[in-house]
Amino acid sequence: MSWIDDPAFSPDEPFGPQTLPYGVLDTPDGPVVAVRVGDHALPLRALAGEFSAELAPLVAAGSLDPLLAAGRPAWSALRARLRELVSQSAAPPGAELLALSAVTTRLPFTVGDYVDFYSSRHHAENVGRMFRPDAEPLLPNWTHLPVGYHGRSGTVVVSGTDVVRPHGQRRGEHGPVFGPSTRLDIEAEVGFVCGGPVAGRVSTSSAPDHVFGVVVLNDWSARDIQAWEYVPLGPFLGKSFATSISAWVTPLEAFAAARVEVPDPGHPRLDYLVEDQHWGLDLTMEVRWNGTTVSRPPFAGMAFSCAQQLAHMTVNGATVRPGDLFGSGTVSGPEKRQRGSFLELSWGGAEPVVLDDGSTRTFLEDGDTVVITATAPGPDGSVVGLSEVVGTVVGG
Amino acid sequence: MSWIDDPAFSPDEPFGPQTLPYGVLDTPDGPVVAVRVGDHALPLRALAGEFSAELAPLVAAGSLDPLLAAGRPAWSALRARLRELVSQSAAPPGAELLALSAVTTRLPFTVGDYVDFYSSRHHAENVGRMFRPDAEPLLPNWTHLPVGYHGRSGTVVVSGTDVVRPHGQRRGEHGPVFGPSTRLDIEAEVGFVCGGPVAGRVSTSSAPDHVFGVVVLNDWSARDIQAWEYVPLGPFLGKSFATSISAWVTPLEAFAAARVEVPDPGHPRLDYLVEDQHWGLDLTMEVRWNGTTVSRPPFAGMAFSCAQQLAHMTVNGATVRPGDLFGSGTVSGPEKRQRGSFLELSWGGAEPVVLDDGSTRTFLEDGDTVVITATAPGPDGSVVGLSEVVGTVVGG
Repeated sequence: MSWIDDPAFSPDEPFGPQTLPYGVLDTPDGPVVAVRVGDHALPLRALAGEFSAELAPLVAAGSLDPLLAAGRPAWSALRARLRELVSQSAAPPGAELLALSAVTTRLPFTVGDYVDFYSSRHHAENVGRMFRPDAEPLLPNWTHLPVGYHGRSGTVVVSGTDVVRPHGQRRGEHGPVFGPSTRLDIEAEVGFVCGGPVAGRVSTSSAPDHVFGVVVLNDWSARDIQAWEYVPLGPFLGKSFATSISAWVTPLEAFAAARVEVPDPGHPRLDYLVEDQHWGLDLTMEVRWNGTTVSRPPFAGMAFSCAQQLAHMTVNGATVRPGDLFGSGTVSGPEKRQRGSFLELSWGGAEPVVLDDGSTRTFLEDGDTVVITATAPGPDGSVVGLSEVVGTVVGG
Repeated sequence: MSWIDDPAFSPDEPFGPQTLPYGVLDTPDGPVVAVRVGDHALPLRALAGEFSAELAPLVAAGSLDPLLAAGRPAWSALRARLRELVSQSAAPPGAELLALSAVTTRLPFTVGDYVDFYSSRHHAENVGRMFRPDAEPLLPNWTHLPVGYHGRSGTVVVSGTDVVRPHGQRRGEHGPVFGPSTRLDIEAEVGFVCGGPVAGRVSTSSAPDHVFGVVVLNDWSARDIQAWEYVPLGPFLGKSFATSISAWVTPLEAFAAARVEVPDPGHPRLDYLVEDQHWGLDLTMEVRWNGTTVSRPPFAGMAFSCAQQLAHMTVNGATVRPGDLFGSGTVSGPEKRQRGSFLELSWGGAEPVVLDDGSTRTFLEDGDTVVITATAPGPDGSVVGLSEVVGTVVGG
C-alpha cells in the first residue's frame, strides 16, 4: 500500500505508478521539477536526497532540460527510483503532494527545433481532397517518406495557455483581405520530446535513445491564412501563432505495452526507414469541444512511427538536440468521428458539428475551449494516460 | 590618427570605423566577444573597464546573447563608445589586436527560430520556371506577402564550418532512390539577427528596434532532395542539413546610408506592410566558387524589406525573441551573372558554369569552396563590408 493517498493513483487508473510523467511547477521558490501521481503533483527538489549523486541534480533543476540531456540510462534509473519512492508505504521525508487543481504548470523544457509531420494517411487524404480538389489527394512522395516541415519553437506553449485568434491575410474576391482568422482550427497530435546526446543520422534502432517522452500536442491552425500562404514553401503564419503541449511529459518507457507495427506502405521501404523493433503506438485520443467529445482519433494507424520520423529527420546529417520536439501530424482515423481537425470533422465548414448543448460549430469561436487527451495500454492490463492539452480561444 | 595599426582599418576600407561588426572568438580563456577592425579582431572583455556599468557586462560576455537582448539604446551607446575607443590616438589599456587569420570564430549567438524568406522576384520566377514548368512562375500570393517558412535553427553554423554532403531520397525512374545529394547548391542571402525585448505584432516602423544586425547567409540546398519532398508542406531535409552565416554581425546602424525603397508591387499594399521609412538595403553581393567570381547579386531589388518581413512574421501574434534569425531569400538580379544560386546560374544543370581554372560546374563537387561577401554604401562615400560566409563541401 503506497503512502500516496490519491484514488487516481493506482494501477487501474491512467496516472498510476505505470505512468509517472514529469512536469515543472511554478512555485514561490521558483520553478521545480515534479512528477504527476494520480491527480497530484509531487515536487522532486525536496526529495533530491533520495536520489543518487548523478540523479539528484536532474530532479533539483528548475526545468527538464538537464534531465533531457542526461540520456537513456539516467532516464531509466530515475524512473526506477521514482517507482520505488511512490510505491513505498511511508512517505519519503520532505514529500508534499499538491493537488493538480492548485498548481501552476509551465512549459517544462526549452524547445529546440520543432518539426511537424503529416503521417496520418486519412488526414493527408482528407486535406488533399479539400485543398487540391482537382488532384490525387495523396502526393507521390507521401508513402515513401514522412512528410514534415519545421514550425516555430518560440510559440510552443504549455497546456492552459489561452490562444489569441491570429490575424492575417486570406484570399478575397479581389485579392487578399486582412483580418482575424475566420477558420481557426485544431490539430490533434502526439508530440515527441527529444533528449540524449546531440546526434546526427540517428537510425531507427537508436532513435528511442533520443526520444525522452511523449506529450499531447495541439497544432492550432488558421485554415484561411494557411490556404492563401502555403504555396510553394509550406505552412507559415497559419501555424506559427501557437502550438500547445501537455504540461506533463510521459516517459517513452511507459509505452512498452503499447507498441505496434506501423501499417505496410504497400511497397518496400528504403533501408533507413526499416524498423527492427516496432515503434508504432496504440494510443487512443479524445477531442472535447466545449465539453462535448467530438472525436476519438486512433494513433495506431499512423503510417510512420516516431523512430522512423526521427531517422528521417536526421538522415541528411541534421543533428537532433535535447529539447527538440516533433509532432506526429494530425491523427485521423477512417471514420468521421475519428478525425483530428475541425476542418475534417466539418468537411471544410460544410457539415457543422453539433455539440451537447445543441449549438453547432464549424471552426472555433472566441471563448471555445478544446481539450485533447490520450490513453494507451499499460503493463498487466493497466492504462497509461497522456495528460491533457487544453486551450481557450480569445479574440485577437 | 587611430592607434589601430591596420591598413584595412580606415574609412576608405570596408571594415573601418563605419562598420564595426561583432563576433565571438574561441580563446584559451573561453569564448569572448570581439569587434572586427580591418583585418583584426579586438577582444572586448579586457576593455570592459572602458564601458559604462550597463554596457560592461555585454562586452564581457561569452556570446552576443546579452547584447542582443539589451535593445536598441544599449546597441547605440555601445557602438558610439566603440567608435571613440577605436578612433582615439592611444590604445586603451588591455587592448590587444589579433589578426583574423590567427583567431577562431564561433557561432556568435544562440539561434532562436530561423525563418527563410523568398523575396527576390527573379529568384522566385527562375525557380518557378524550373520546378513547375507548366504553371505561372510566380504564384498569386507572391506579390502580396513575403513568402517564407521555418528552417532548422540547430544546424545554423558559423562561416568556415565544412558542409557535409547530405544523403536523402530523390525521385528515381521507379520510385525514390537514396544516396548522397547529386544536386548540392548554395543560396546567397542576407540574414537579419533579431534582438530587443520579446514582442509580438511588430510594426514596420518598430521593426528596426528588433533587428540587431546583418550577416551574409548561405542557405545550402540539396535540390534533388528538395524537389522530391517539398510538396505540399515545403522544403525540409533539402535545407535542414546546414545554413552558414558570417562570423561577424554588422549592426543595422551601419547601413543608414544604404537604405532604399523597395520596388512597387504594382498594387496597393495591405496596411501592415506599408513602410513609413525605407528599409530596403543597397547591398551588392559577390559569390566566389573556388575563387572565381560567378555572380554579383544586387540586394536593392528585393521585393520586401527586413522591416516588412519582420512585420509579416509577427502579424499573426507570433513573438520574436533575441537570437531569432531570418534570411532574405536567395538574392537574384535580372542578369544571369546576378543569380544567387547555382541552380539558376546553370539553369538546372543545363548550362555549366566555367571557372577561372577552366573546369566546369553545374552543382557542387566535394572539395569545392564557396565564399559569399557583400558591401553597401557607407556614410560620406565610405563602404560598409559584410564579413564573408565561407564553406567547403566534404563527402558525406
